[in-house]
Amino acid sequence: MTHFEVSFPVRYYETDQMAVVHHSNYIRYFEIARNAMMVAWGFPIERCENEYGVMIPIVSVECRFKHPARMGDVLTAVAEIDRTPMAKLIVRQSVFNQEGEVCADGTVTLGFIDAKTFRPVRCPELLAQIIENHLNDK
Amino acid sequence: MTHFEVSFPVRYYETDQMAVVHHSNYIRYFEIARNAMMVAWGFPIERCENEYGVMIPIVSVECRFKHPARMGDVLTAVAEIDRTPMAKLIVRQSVFNQEGEVCADGTVTLGFIDAKTFRPVRCPELLAQIIENHLNDK
Amino acid sequence: MTHFEVSFPVRYYETDQMAVVHHSNYIRYFEIARNAMMVAWGFPIERCENEYGVMIPIVSVECRFKHPARMGDVLTAVAEIDRTPMAKLIVRQSVFNQEGEVCADGTVTLGFIDAKTFRPVRCPELLAQIIENHLNDK
Amino acid sequence: MTHFEVSFPVRYYETDQMAVVHHSNYIRYFEIARNAMMVAWGFPIERCENEYGVMIPIVSVECRFKHPARMGDVLTAVAEIDRTPMAKLIVRQSVFNQEGEVCADGTVTLGFIDAKTFRPVRCPELLAQIIENHLNDK
Repeated sequence: MTHFEVSFPVRYYETDQMAVVHHSNYIRYFEIARNAMMVAWGFPIERCENEYGVMIPIVSVECRFKHPARMGDVLTAVAEIDRTPMAKLIVRQSVFNQEGEVCADGTVTLGFIDAKTFRPVRCPELLAQIIENHLNDK
Repeated sequence: MTHFEVSFPVRYYETDQMAVVHHSNYIRYFEIARNAMMVAWGFPIERCENEYGVMIPIVSVECRFKHPARMGDVLTAVAEIDRTPMAKLIVRQSVFNQEGEVCADGTVTLGFIDAKTFRPVRCPELLAQIIENHLNDK
Repeated sequence: MTHFEVSFPVRYYETDQMAVVHHSNYIRYFEIARNAMMVAWGFPIERCENEYGVMIPIVSVECRFKHPARMGDVLTAVAEIDRTPMAKLIVRQSVFNQEGEVCADGTVTLGFIDAKTFRPVRCPELLAQIIENHLNDK
Repeated sequence: MTHFEVSFPVRYYETDQMAVVHHSNYIRYFEIARNAMMVAWGFPIERCENEYGVMIPIVSVECRFKHPARMGDVLTAVAEIDRTPMAKLIVRQSVFNQEGEVCADGTVTLGFIDAKTFRPVRCPELLAQIIENHLNDK
């Protein structure tokens, strides 16, 4: 399993009138972890689009909200991958707070499409290899 | 089944650099339909908090992204309920565009908690009755 | 003076933990009015980019926050133009609520740049004419 | 002059279809710097509300947009204060990128109001002192 995480404080505009982080923001936190993981791998999504002509749209999201995050919290967003992607990339995601409490967890499924035709394609070879290498390392 | 829908144009800030509506916004569109439904029922969530001391947090969200929405689109967000809530309120949701294409659909599950103790409670009687009446009407 | 306005209810995610609309959203409401105005004129900003190769970036924003908007409010965002644009388009903006109270007002200044070279250009002729016609009508 | 800054990467959802950070986000970046400054001073805005019963609403914002920020950029948001606040707190703000280019700058003016009566009050003594100490240090 590859494991990547990134931390950041809650931003004021992310809170809502219940004085907790609005639930839609966890979907955004999930993406922050995924994108930071891609950057750490030397394969930012921009590169995927520009060099490979492949876009990586979100196919589906599942998210369970478990514990409210609040202003003052420092959150950690996690992205984990279990196996080398073929047609889909499945990412297990979570967000926990500075006490280690899980605020939200879930799964995000991404696809690969040709940036011109918008037709589904397979995961770019280099990305598949990067993930495979990380899976073998751990 | 109760059916409620509300329409609105895409907002520029909701697009991302793929020139489509960022996926996190569908979770927000779902909520717009739910809240507008509550208002139409004479039972806005504020009233639920203020008069009944009951908050209605999101327990989980599932969303499939099917067709990108773009600037210029007028979207319709739908909230549908199949049965009277007890401990949970399950809402079927979708967003479609002016061509009738489904951009996203999914399910949102809400709970009921005491606004003071944060303990789970049952759906406020009046809300359960409103939903039951709507279910019987159709 | 041209006058354009568009109305919409406050969205839950726009509130913050003070239980009012987060101040950054007024900047977004301003843009909603401007873009709806352009659409009403048959000249949506997409068309400006696609047909004229001209982008209309924001140069500056001034905004005074006067009265908090809250969940349940129906807001009206206003865009007004006083004179035909040359190098800049100056838009007077405001947001008021269902009681007619001004929640925020200000001025947004936009420029015109070539979509390829990013160099400043003059306002596209057709847009200047549309605005001039509206100015003469009223 | 007190000077405080905080850095963070651009988030994907902050970009718009021009492939740059949507202008409204700079207003949010400004707030991130202000709030992080308050936390660094041991005086987070929550404390101001809870212990002093004083809220610090935004009175006005002025922002000039100078250089687009893009996905991949690491931004630094700056908050600077020139003098001890009385009825108002005036904060000079900017956002620059990893090349040192200023993406946006401006001024945010905040007020102080009683959390119960919503009447204007003076800056809480402790906050005024903290700022004065920082002004004298540099």
